[in-house]
Amino acid sequence: MLIVGEKINGTRALVAKAIAERDTAFIQDLAKKQVEGGVTWLDVNAGVSPDKENEALIWLVDTVQAVTDVPLCLDSANPGALAAAIGHVKKTPLINSISGETKKLAGILPLLSKNKCPAIAQALDDTGIPKDVDSRMVIIRRLISEIRQAGVTDSDIYVDPLIMSLATNTQAGLIALDTIKLIRLEFPGVHIMPALSNVSFGLPARTIINQAFLGLAVAVGMDGAILDPIDKGLRSAILAVEVVLGRDRFCLNYNRAFRAGRLAVAPKS
Amino acid sequence: MLIVGEKINGTRALVAKAIAERDTAFIQDLAKKQVEGGVTWLDVNAGVSPDKENEALIWLVDTVQAVTDVPLCLDSANPGALAAAIGHVKKTPLINSISGETKKLAGILPLLSKNKCPAIAQALDDTGIPKDVDSRMVIIRRLISEIRQAGVTDSDIYVDPLIMSLATNTQAGLIALDTIKLIRLEFPGVHIMPALSNVSFGLPARTIINQAFLGLAVAVGMDGAILDPIDKGLRSAILAVEVVLGRDRFCLNYNRAFRAGRLAVAPKS
Repeated sequence: MLIVGEKINGTRALVAKAIAERDTAFIQDLAKKQVEGGVTWLDVNAGVSPDKENEALIWLVDTVQAVTDVPLCLDSANPGALAAAIGHVKKTPLINSISGETKKLAGILPLLSKNKCPAIAQALDDTGIPKDVDSRMVIIRRLISEIRQAGVTDSDIYVDPLIMSLATNTQAGLIALDTIKLIRLEFPGVHIMPALSNVSFGLPARTIINQAFLGLAVAVGMDGAILDPIDKGLRSAILAVEVVLGRDRFCLNYNRAFRAGRLAVAPKS
Repeated sequence: MLIVGEKINGTRALVAKAIAERDTAFIQDLAKKQVEGGVTWLDVNAGVSPDKENEALIWLVDTVQAVTDVPLCLDSANPGALAAAIGHVKKTPLINSISGETKKLAGILPLLSKNKCPAIAQALDDTGIPKDVDSRMVIIRRLISEIRQAGVTDSDIYVDPLIMSLATNTQAGLIALDTIKLIRLEFPGVHIMPALSNVSFGLPARTIINQAFLGLAVAVGMDGAILDPIDKGLRSAILAVEVVLGRDRFCLNYNRAFRAGRLAVAPKS
């Protein structure tokens, strides 16, 4: 599975503090721990106002790249900050995110064309996040069509179906799973990469819910996620669902993870 | 979900010893712990040769019933022992199991008719356990037809699709899931109740695999399982998948389990 490590995000209090204080050690530690957990990209989100964002995002890019070769996922709604950060990355970044919002689309689409960057496309538009599956698919179809027209190939498109919290709507899981199923059917060549933990927002013992949702989502076509790669229980669940679905040849990855102490079992009683 | 607590099984060494020594305290402790975990039935399997089975099974039935009102799942291939045990139960038992094997069918079917007992029907016949989904469905169709003809209603039929180990066949999970999906489609009124943990036999950290399989199986129509009800991680996974599938109104069961300390989270790192 393709994994974006979510933890270097300035909307989290401790990370915001580290960014404000330019605390290199804190950020680099978070980067290294996530790389140890196993990631395809490391998300960097400066979480500051647009006037400070270019500088903060560039600092994050430089700081993280000083300790790892893992490519970055540039997380901003600001085309200026994204363009500035793209100038600093050593490897092609994943852009997080583009959406059906007119301004965002107009601002970020040219960046994708110009830099041949893959991007996360979120299922929302100027009217907000649609509540039902059909309206989501209408936005997703339009968005994929626009991104394709900008010259981006399907394998560089990462659709985020926008998972909502089960705590506020008990149908949120089914809506997300049905959306994933339809995206996979209609667009077999794109990736499907939601921000996973939204599903459990407001519930206790969130990782249990995240694990359950993850398994069901992988089974219907999700092949990536933005998540906490340090969460061993969640990583164990990813390995396990791949075994169950017959995708781990001779269960090699799973057995290797066990021997390396990378599986976490909940206490039995 | 309908749950049969699997732990009082004479094929397990400690339970065999307890049965041989008629260790009432040991068996009653196992019964009480499973009831605390939450079960619909408690399995009792004497695990002894047919000549000793009547007496041993009756002892188990009496011993367990002395500490709990939960109905029993009488686990034997021996019609004589089953008939003897049925004479001792206080509540209608679940019979575990009947199958397409000619002798077993002929011996146990009349017991079901006579005593109006629900039963677990296993997807195997005289030729063994079929390797592929289609052959399993052939047996399951025949078996359900015979059980119906004996006067048993669909709601008293519990189909065990016979899950095989992923360690010996990485396709075993998919075969089980596809079989469950087809049973649910063709026979919406029957229950689907496999012995869950077979799926992880031979693999390390089995509960992680059991949890992953359980989620996927519930999503395609499994509504029961024979499992270890004391395994808090597994119980947490059951509660979580019901939340994700929108079946836990206002997430009440999940939140209640959390407050009661019944959720188990794997260590994060």
